[in-house]
Amino acid sequence: MSTATPPLFHISGTGRALPGDAVSNAELGRAFGISESWIDVFVGTRTRHFGRDLASGKVTHTLTDLCAEAADRALAAAGTAPADVDFLVLSTATPDALLPTTANETADRLGLTLLPTYQLQAGCAGAVQALDLARALLAGGHRTGLVVAGDVTDRFLDTGPDVARLPAQELVNYVLFGDGAAAAVVTADPGPDHTALAVHALLHHFAGLGRPPGQIVGWHGAAAPDPARRMLFEDYRAIEAQVPDLAAQTVAELLAASGWAPQQIGHVLPPQLSGRMTDRIMAGLGLPAASREVSCVRETGNTGNALPLLQLDLLAGRLEPGGRALAAVVESSKWIKAGLALERPATGRTEDRP
Amino acid sequence: MSTATPPLFHISGTGRALPGDAVSNAELGRAFGISESWIDVFVGTRTRHFGRDLASGKVTHTLTDLCAEAADRALAAAGTAPADVDFLVLSTATPDALLPTTANETADRLGLTLLPTYQLQAGCAGAVQALDLARALLAGGHRTGLVVAGDVTDRFLDTGPDVARLPAQELVNYVLFGDGAAAAVVTADPGPDHTALAVHALLHHFAGLGRPPGQIVGWHGAAAPDPARRMLFEDYRAIEAQVPDLAAQTVAELLAASGWAPQQIGHVLPPQLSGRMTDRIMAGLGLPAASREVSCVRETGNTGNALPLLQLDLLAGRLEPGGRALAAVVESSKWIKAGLALERPATGRTEDRP
Repeated sequence: MSTATPPLFHISGTGRALPGDAVSNAELGRAFGISESWIDVFVGTRTRHFGRDLASGKVTHTLTDLCAEAADRALAAAGTAPADVDFLVLSTATPDALLPTTANETADRLGLTLLPTYQLQAGCAGAVQALDLARALLAGGHRTGLVVAGDVTDRFLDTGPDVARLPAQELVNYVLFGDGAAAAVVTADPGPDHTALAVHALLHHFAGLGRPPGQIVGWHGAAAPDPARRMLFEDYRAIEAQVPDLAAQTVAELLAASGWAPQQIGHVLPPQLSGRMTDRIMAGLGLPAASREVSCVRETGNTGNALPLLQLDLLAGRLEPGGRALAAVVESSKWIKAGLALERPATGRTEDRP
Repeated sequence: MSTATPPLFHISGTGRALPGDAVSNAELGRAFGISESWIDVFVGTRTRHFGRDLASGKVTHTLTDLCAEAADRALAAAGTAPADVDFLVLSTATPDALLPTTANETADRLGLTLLPTYQLQAGCAGAVQALDLARALLAGGHRTGLVVAGDVTDRFLDTGPDVARLPAQELVNYVLFGDGAAAAVVTADPGPDHTALAVHALLHHFAGLGRPPGQIVGWHGAAAPDPARRMLFEDYRAIEAQVPDLAAQTVAELLAASGWAPQQIGHVLPPQLSGRMTDRIMAGLGLPAASREVSCVRETGNTGNALPLLQLDLLAGRLEPGGRALAAVVESSKWIKAGLALERPATGRTEDRP
């Protein structure tokens, strides 16, 4: 059952943080005057969480709050003390501030000190980019690290009274996204009982050469906003056309890199654009129908950077000894292919060796 | 002359990009109605460059423009073709957009494809954080990478008519900063002629546990700005008090890590807060008076992420065979100590060996 080459690194614990109660389509529909059935049919997402109160607009959870909570849970799940963490990598598209970084604010909350911290500015592939950075840091001599990823939407949704009159391509942003964070403890060694998830291949490739952006998310600072600057733009046609293809390429490349056959893949973590898109993407991956989907977008909404780690958190509770999984992620702002090939080592691993 | 342990990695070429003509204190004073002599005395910076036209406010250079130009020059200096670049790391506090990343827009400009790209959200230590990430990627098997760092201030300076009436702690932001980018080609191998700068030690430690931020830089998106959110805040007293101390700690730690004696340090790259602060910081580093300062803040202003690589670009033209240098950087938004120990290998290196 064991593969020929040693794993790149191990995931010894995962954790998540979703703010407040789940918000249903009915509640969201009432808050914004949007048709509940339009959300059901057009997006396919049933619930999501928000780090602010829908009625008052008041922020209830910052990204730092969510990242620190998810990290605490991942450390507890791994049985790792903060003092044993050698580095912190955090990825997000929506940091609490440009400076200080949310990575350093999270380090402060966790009581970490005198260690390297990195914050990746990233879209949907951020969690895998962060795991790729962690892989390099572990290869360079570190033993244990913390990877955190999350997003909050509070500064992109203007909850004024005119939301229902927005065109569908803008309205979708109110129902597609959710807030959340998730975290993973990564280690160079498999741990004493060899039960940590082993990462056997990791893909992280910029694939946007010559391709126009599928998504633009702007920001402004103290100066008056430039009216010519688009603050939020999504080319859903390009995203819906290209993501299934790039996800299928990712799966094929992960199979080639791991040397695994499609029939050996028991679980699949597909890209999580929306509930509706997940079915289409799954169908095009070229994996056996028996491969079980590990997804959460229908319950959490698109939580951006958090999603792949939320899926890993689900997988950690489901993957049986000897089981294998592939995760595929596509960043559609400037097109990144990213993914993981994962295995739960068989118990009594040494007996499997020839 | 050669040190006992092999270098961590090598810097085979550097390049810079500063937009437009240098803007003098006299021009800046006229544009904003500020006293030229106040700038001279209070800040000690003589010129800087801006990626926008001071009179019209029109943006002339985006961060992507500057990063791509600096990267092109670094590749040319190293004699490296874009096809031989294995990864791109870009650090900035002020990306052109939240998404797509400026790293991916820069990769697109350079013609890079199917390689990992990372964008670090970072303050003044960003260039060293990016080099630390590059070190890990080189340790993990990559051979050649591109590190780019830069900042532009266009969205933080409101060039309305009332600038001159701002209090001094806000006015200083108009005269302290400049725009720019710089880049370095990094390699695992010393190259055929052993003339690349060798990095013998690299420090990158979060040191902000329990310390309040010295700087806060906010952002907002499509939603109306939250009036309670501070958009730009600097605690100059904390910065002036803590940076010299943290820089001295950095130098001591680099000496310990490299095993070099203070007398062997011919060049010093000090933190570059402002022209005035540089003298104070240099005096407190505990290095011999003969160590030559390599700095550029008086000519470029504080260009944030770009500064350490601008200094490296200067050092590359000055460091003699066998010469050694230390670079110290302090991030004051949430306090990071960072730095490099650098050596130009002696020519005829093999003859130096016992």
